[in-house]
Amino acid sequence: MSFAPLQNDTFLRACLRQATDHTPLWLMRQAGRYLPEYGATRAKAGSFMGLATNVDYATEVTLQPLERYPLDAAILFSDILTVPDAMGLGLSFAMGEGPKFATHVRDEAAVAELAVPDMNKLRYVFDAVTSIRKALHGRVPLIGFSGSPWTLACYMVEGGGSDDYRAVKTLMYSRPDLMHRILSINADAVAAYLNAQIDAGAQAVMVFDSWGGVLADGAFQTFSMAYTHRVLEQLQTEKDGQRIPRIVFTKGGGLWLNEMNSLPCEVLGVDWTVNLGRARLVVGGDVGGAGKALQGNLDPNVLFASPQHIETEAVRVLDSFGLPHTDRATTGPTHIFNLGHGISQYTPPDSVAALVAAVHSHSRRMRA
Amino acid sequence: MSFAPLQNDTFLRACLRQATDHTPLWLMRQAGRYLPEYGATRAKAGSFMGLATNVDYATEVTLQPLERYPLDAAILFSDILTVPDAMGLGLSFAMGEGPKFATHVRDEAAVAELAVPDMNKLRYVFDAVTSIRKALHGRVPLIGFSGSPWTLACYMVEGGGSDDYRAVKTLMYSRPDLMHRILSINADAVAAYLNAQIDAGAQAVMVFDSWGGVLADGAFQTFSMAYTHRVLEQLQTEKDGQRIPRIVFTKGGGLWLNEMNSLPCEVLGVDWTVNLGRARLVVGGDVGGAGKALQGNLDPNVLFASPQHIETEAVRVLDSFGLPHTDRATTGPTHIFNLGHGISQYTPPDSVAALVAAVHSHSRRMRA
Repeated sequence: MSFAPLQNDTFLRACLRQATDHTPLWLMRQAGRYLPEYGATRAKAGSFMGLATNVDYATEVTLQPLERYPLDAAILFSDILTVPDAMGLGLSFAMGEGPKFATHVRDEAAVAELAVPDMNKLRYVFDAVTSIRKALHGRVPLIGFSGSPWTLACYMVEGGGSDDYRAVKTLMYSRPDLMHRILSINADAVAAYLNAQIDAGAQAVMVFDSWGGVLADGAFQTFSMAYTHRVLEQLQTEKDGQRIPRIVFTKGGGLWLNEMNSLPCEVLGVDWTVNLGRARLVVGGDVGGAGKALQGNLDPNVLFASPQHIETEAVRVLDSFGLPHTDRATTGPTHIFNLGHGISQYTPPDSVAALVAAVHSHSRRMRA
Repeated sequence: MSFAPLQNDTFLRACLRQATDHTPLWLMRQAGRYLPEYGATRAKAGSFMGLATNVDYATEVTLQPLERYPLDAAILFSDILTVPDAMGLGLSFAMGEGPKFATHVRDEAAVAELAVPDMNKLRYVFDAVTSIRKALHGRVPLIGFSGSPWTLACYMVEGGGSDDYRAVKTLMYSRPDLMHRILSINADAVAAYLNAQIDAGAQAVMVFDSWGGVLADGAFQTFSMAYTHRVLEQLQTEKDGQRIPRIVFTKGGGLWLNEMNSLPCEVLGVDWTVNLGRARLVVGGDVGGAGKALQGNLDPNVLFASPQHIETEAVRVLDSFGLPHTDRATTGPTHIFNLGHGISQYTPPDSVAALVAAVHSHSRRMRA
């Protein structure tokens, strides 16, 4: 496949710890329910899965936020749970509710039936990646993604969302052997899935460890981080001569940054509880040396305040990271602006415009 | 008032960083729904508030876990939200649901009406404290408690529990002046409330900052920690010649331990994401010097595994803290064993017996 040349490489450069003229910005769930045009497309599609599995609709909604805002990256419109759906667990989304699986995996027999799914069952995702990449015409890079092995396991065992993770943790504490088996399969499936997204045109990939932060110290390293590592080490890191950055985001993982520094990835995403300046000291690395780019971390609830308050809080986040690396001849600590979690469906669209303007202008001022 | 002399001072000694023969243990929400005898008393009382406001019932349920298990402390049976209820907001608990307020506080007019409540409206709590203290006959010390100013504010603004804290954070980010006004009133009310519990017989007090961990770095220090500080500095630290330890527990606050070290309290509670060994290095202090005792931090979901797995995980928590201070002539780092959050209502009561036995026996072995 051949695609149009990339016009705005700010995001990819920052992922690789290279200097940029401004701090690149994208938002988790930037294509979503807060946009009225998304609602219109979803109504045409009939259901969330109807939207996600239709290449034209998925392309349409992925590009919607880019029509409104000068964001520095696009992210595939899909769900973190497509892989267990392809394993045969039957994913669905009731209106206004979270994901649900028809089958859950809670005993030895159910675990024995699990296997890395045939990637042809996920063809609709790879087709969407290629379609979106073409539709972007090189405006900004396209990010592919998946849930982490642990996060997928949470949903597979619970059968949906959970307040207390009782079922998945009961399995983990009482039958660690079964949990390791689920996680091994998930890791190999996620690796194959992300590699196929890269083959289809994804220019960076992100692993969402949305529920890593519910684990105890020790359990996180054993049951989440180790399997994210297993995913990352299987990923292709270059495609058509371009490096493919790998991003890992663990919600609630700020206490383990020091350990996550050893993950074979280029970027670590952090939520709003993390002080970016301190995180930079831990994982940002030195000029010329190894280290991670950092992605984050505005509280999405800031977007319910006035444009002036949004600017104040965006500046606070940029300043907490401090001046990123500016020398184009070397690499050094860099920052990708994002929220610390997905954007709320109730966000006023004008708030996003205010945020994007504030991040771009203040981050240019910092470099001046 | 005069009470029977204390027979088991292990918990109070550990709070004050004094050596003990074993690591003391109690469980957040140890008097609660997982115990069938609690269900029987609640059925007699008719409702949660009917239970909490009746001195005899509150005394009965507070003592129930002590009849079953050799725990090292009792904690007043009550709710973290009694103070805003006394402010006139109308607290209730529907069966199987969380707390709800009849009125919420979201605008200037509602904030203007808030005031520190007349402590006579909370007389039922102080009467329960005295009744429980008498009923304990000095077996173990009695802990009093309240929600933190920020945690109370979350419920007061949201009107109940929340997934995203949108209402309270919208107010915080857009009208910080109103939020500071709420928090100031809450802090002075909580201080008066805890001082009255101490007067009534509480031998230690705990501030539950259950929702501090949802705040962004920076916002936590400004809107939660500063007002917890305002509570603590107003508390009486001695009563009838006995020191009254102050405990602060911020769920999800592990990243801010270094800053919380400056709080005027004796003990910091931590959840299961925290590594106790690292926390000890940050806040545990040295022999003879200043520092905090640490309380925590087993994942409550461990109690759904077998007795053997419970023992393994309890030992892991004890070992992660390491050997506590053992010299009776000086003070040093100490540990109070607890869960990292309230015990689940679905916990098998026998699991608690296994946990208590494991903590007491292994912690004695460590000292031997």
